[in-house]
Amino acid sequence: MAISSLLKGDHRALAKAITLIENNDPRAAKVIRNVFPYTGRAFVIGVTGPPGAGKSTLVDKLIAHYRHKSKSVGVLAIDPSSAFTGGALLGDRVRMQSHNLDPNVFIRSMASRGGVGGLAKATRNAIRLLDASGKDVVIVETVGAGQSEVEIVKVSDATVVVTVPQLGDEVQIFKAGLMEIGDIFVVNKADLLGADRMVTYLMSGIISKEGWKPPIVKTNAKTGEGVEELAMALEKRKTFISGGKQAEKRQTERISAELAVLVTERMSETFSKALVNDDELERIAKLVVGKRMDPETAAKKLFTKLWKKMVA
Amino acid sequence: MAISSLLKGDHRALAKAITLIENNDPRAAKVIRNVFPYTGRAFVIGVTGPPGAGKSTLVDKLIAHYRHKSKSVGVLAIDPSSAFTGGALLGDRVRMQSHNLDPNVFIRSMASRGGVGGLAKATRNAIRLLDASGKDVVIVETVGAGQSEVEIVKVSDATVVVTVPQLGDEVQIFKAGLMEIGDIFVVNKADLLGADRMVTYLMSGIISKEGWKPPIVKTNAKTGEGVEELAMALEKRKTFISGGKQAEKRQTERISAELAVLVTERMSETFSKALVNDDELERIAKLVVGKRMDPETAAKKLFTKLWKKMVA
Repeated sequence: MAISSLLKGDHRALAKAITLIENNDPRAAKVIRNVFPYTGRAFVIGVTGPPGAGKSTLVDKLIAHYRHKSKSVGVLAIDPSSAFTGGALLGDRVRMQSHNLDPNVFIRSMASRGGVGGLAKATRNAIRLLDASGKDVVIVETVGAGQSEVEIVKVSDATVVVTVPQLGDEVQIFKAGLMEIGDIFVVNKADLLGADRMVTYLMSGIISKEGWKPPIVKTNAKTGEGVEELAMALEKRKTFISGGKQAEKRQTERISAELAVLVTERMSETFSKALVNDDELERIAKLVVGKRMDPETAAKKLFTKLWKKMVA
Repeated sequence: MAISSLLKGDHRALAKAITLIENNDPRAAKVIRNVFPYTGRAFVIGVTGPPGAGKSTLVDKLIAHYRHKSKSVGVLAIDPSSAFTGGALLGDRVRMQSHNLDPNVFIRSMASRGGVGGLAKATRNAIRLLDASGKDVVIVETVGAGQSEVEIVKVSDATVVVTVPQLGDEVQIFKAGLMEIGDIFVVNKADLLGADRMVTYLMSGIISKEGWKPPIVKTNAKTGEGVEELAMALEKRKTFISGGKQAEKRQTERISAELAVLVTERMSETFSKALVNDDELERIAKLVVGKRMDPETAAKKLFTKLWKKMVA
């Protein structure tokens, strides 16, 4: 891997490195180790919300805004679903292609391999690559599909929840847990009937976190209305989280959570290997097949035996 | 929990027990333990494929087929995505409501809590409940969304992959790994242009597994054409997997895989608890925040320390 090219912002080196990470290639760890000291400069914006809310169009306009301010931008479009729905998402992506020839804009789709956990890890490390490559702003867009929204909070400095005025949609935003994760709320397609109702609804549910009260911004991504306001809200958020002690505490908490996951993963691997080499598994499985033991009880027994053996 | 009502096939008891399982309620383990000896009789059919392939309509027709043969049917509609896309799926569900008043048909949607792993576990146990309650056939329908299709194989006696003739769709079926998991392939909406092309395409990719060569069935779920043929293919599959030694080996492998997951889960929990009570985590996290160590190296160090401490 050409680490030096990557650090200079070379898009080909960046693309190759992200592929290594996406494929969980053994070389990925080394790349991250090498670029890690150069991370921590980019402002990371997470954009989430239901399908059809206009997230991609909004991201497109945000890119234009930052480019106008001479800032470089990296975009990761996260797709937690299969190859099937990937088709639909790719359509959205096309809208962002107006920036495709701009050497200061890097756009990349990332698909799920190895489940949500694997994707979260890959996203986190892809952000690090974009960060180290010198991108001033990194935008992570995720389709509103379950656990991925919750994961986006852990990697973003500002999580933007994009909603649209639509009858019945309010309840779904609550159900999906989006109220809890938003640092900024956008009511997009604000020209549609019910926009003010949506704003009122969001206001009633907004939760202040660590002294930050999430603002609500009305936009019309297609015409660009409200995008400047959104950018201002993002700037405020950036200033807010850059502040001293609080920022360090936040970072330590995030890294602790990441380490906990990595360590538990290692543990699982070690244990799985021990399990594969153990005759006890098949013996107990046969008891379960014969209905002489239920799976939970069997797992408990197997765990105790294996644990004793491993620590012996 | 009224276990006896459940074993008699009472739908209210069944619904309550599935809710316990879905919520990962502590009482769920006891319910499974009690019903487990009564499981192993139902024929479990998994139905998967891309959104819009007509899976729900096909399931609806399969229910009618089995009811006509006086067999009782349980249906689990698995939705691995969030509350948002849940709306769309619920629309599909409505089509199955024609059987809603039939006391021998039980239909239930299950949503994701705690990720794909959690859903796989809940599905497996919900199947056990339907099985123990006396349902002759259990149909598990899952939307084509990533890892859930792979999981469906582990719980089904027959995995039915539903496709539609559509340009470009062929490649996606390969990409999504559906060729590997299908025991029976359906080309639905067979009246559409390209149906024969799809059949040819599937034939070229079909893989025989353990002596079973997956058949391809053309259907038109809306009119019911081909459903009898599909039912016959399912009957053949049922006969095939019921055979002696092979069947026992298959069951042992499945239970072994399930136990391995359950045991590893227990291990992770134990390790996570140990981690929370450890000062070392915060100390090392601070090193990472200060860019004096990268996350992977930190995780390795932390793992080694914690492991030594636990086995001491």
